Amino acid sequence: MKTAIVGLGLIGSSLAYQLKEAGCSVIGYARKQETVDKALTLGIIDSGSTNLETVVAEVDIVVLAIPIEIIPIMIKEVDEYVSNGTVVVDVGSVKKYIMDQVSGMSLQNALFVGAHPMAGSEKVGIDNFVRDLYIDKPFIVTYPDESIKKKTQKLIKEFVKIIKSKYIEMDEDTHDKMVSDISHIPYILSSVLYNQVARGNSEKVASSGYRDMTRIAHSDPLWGTVVSFLNKDNICNGIDEMIAALNFVKKSISKGDIDTIFDYLNIDNKDNTKKNLVKKQINDYYGLE
Amino acid sequence: MKTAIVGLGLIGSSLAYQLKEAGCSVIGYARKQETVDKALTLGIIDSGSTNLETVVAEVDIVVLAIPIEIIPIMIKEVDEYVSNGTVVVDVGSVKKYIMDQVSGMSLQNALFVGAHPMAGSEKVGIDNFVRDLYIDKPFIVTYPDESIKKKTQKLIKEFVKIIKSKYIEMDEDTHDKMVSDISHIPYILSSVLYNQVARGNSEKVASSGYRDMTRIAHSDPLWGTVVSFLNKDNICNGIDEMIAALNFVKKSISKGDIDTIFDYLNIDNKDNTKKNLVKKQINDYYGLE
Repeated sequence: MKTAIVGLGLIGSSLAYQLKEAGCSVIGYARKQETVDKALTLGIIDSGSTNLETVVAEVDIVVLAIPIEIIPIMIKEVDEYVSNGTVVVDVGSVKKYIMDQVSGMSLQNALFVGAHPMAGSEKVGIDNFVRDLYIDKPFIVTYPDESIKKKTQKLIKEFVKIIKSKYIEMDEDTHDKMVSDISHIPYILSSVLYNQVARGNSEKVASSGYRDMTRIAHSDPLWGTVVSFLNKDNICNGIDEMIAALNFVKKSISKGDIDTIFDYLNIDNKDNTKKNLVKKQINDYYGLE
Repeated sequence: MKTAIVGLGLIGSSLAYQLKEAGCSVIGYARKQETVDKALTLGIIDSGSTNLETVVAEVDIVVLAIPIEIIPIMIKEVDEYVSNGTVVVDVGSVKKYIMDQVSGMSLQNALFVGAHPMAGSEKVGIDNFVRDLYIDKPFIVTYPDESIKKKTQKLIKEFVKIIKSKYIEMDEDTHDKMVSDISHIPYILSSVLYNQVARGNSEKVASSGYRDMTRIAHSDPLWGTVVSFLNKDNICNGIDEMIAALNFVKKSISKGDIDTIFDYLNIDNKDNTKKNLVKKQINDYYGLE
């Protein structure tokens, strides 16, 4: 398969690595020659250029591994340069916005399909590329219509197989809701936690639990800002759900409802035979029984 | 240093491993002979028994690496068996409760000092012991009074040095507030996130960010229940703070306040030169400008 990776940041360069490892031809595009040179030195692309046209002109699939804010404009530009019928996918973390933008374009050559590999890092840049980033990770595909699906699905499935990801088809609304749940809302929780702890002085006693919980808060704030607004309905609903759940937990703690808290926290259905010992201890301490 | 580890779960056995590696004499106590045998086979204790008296009778320091709910009763029991002046520490995640309980006891032999190594895992049991669990981690020490501090500080500092942790002295109220911030509240957030996502079907597209955020939700729910109630004032205040912060974020998103969200998310003070591009994109999409 002949592939073009547009954008050689962490996402694009990790993808390039896996494609090249799997024997695909990989051409890379970056705005800076320095990044192209680095990718060549690392051996993760066969050739590369800062000239978009030469990169995308003769490939089977173009992957736009670039920030969401420039995806629409790049789709239009790539459309001018690709051969007729070339598959073009993005990797953006919101899909309704992208599909909306594309539905307003009359693409001449590109067969655009929305995509979102569920893999990433709080880090950025080619220097942080990850060798196995996509292995066993969900790769979400959103087709704009049945006609394009018919023309592109086979190639996309093959592409997903090559990078050893799990192919999952999904419409843009479902995608944006699910990704809000497992990525955007966790990111906001992580940021809220980081900001609250930073206000106090408690960071000095923090250990691995806190570090894990605040890792994704260190993601690119531009990305965070873009998704916060471009997926705002899902995110605002998700925040409401979190607040309701936190209120429920607080209320249960306040009124001493030990059974409710235990059940809520017992997500793996562990043995609860010692629950009564704990209840006795708590009630003794507060003089409730 | 002659040490006794009471309780050979993940916490106790990881501690035993490091102490033995450092050349200390380590005697282990567990309720089940099977656990003692395993510890002997693993070579992480010199000797062990299910008889508490023989384990603690002739050591310099006894570490109670047991669940919070049985710490007070074990302090009393250990006090009967230790030689006069033996240092006894716990490892519990709440300190005011423990210090309150101990202040109501008239210990005859033990010099009890509250302790909390800021290291752990969502896993449990000797089978999951970790070789470097305490290295470079904060080890919080809470003295009940100046007299006991005078008698025990030197030994405790030496102990903390041996396991390569960072010695931090703190009163029980400060401890419980800080640990609420960086451990108990993160645990509750993690559980809330897990429970909300479990209600939907979004888990199937989850990746490393979500997994990291929900790792600690898999902690022992008995532990979670005990700390929720024994540190309830700090935790309820912390939940209120989280709710306020989430409302702030939601309000800022709802009213389209892009600058505020960007600044809130930009915890590492990254370059913001592309913020205007993002603002234009968001405003264009929503037809605001």
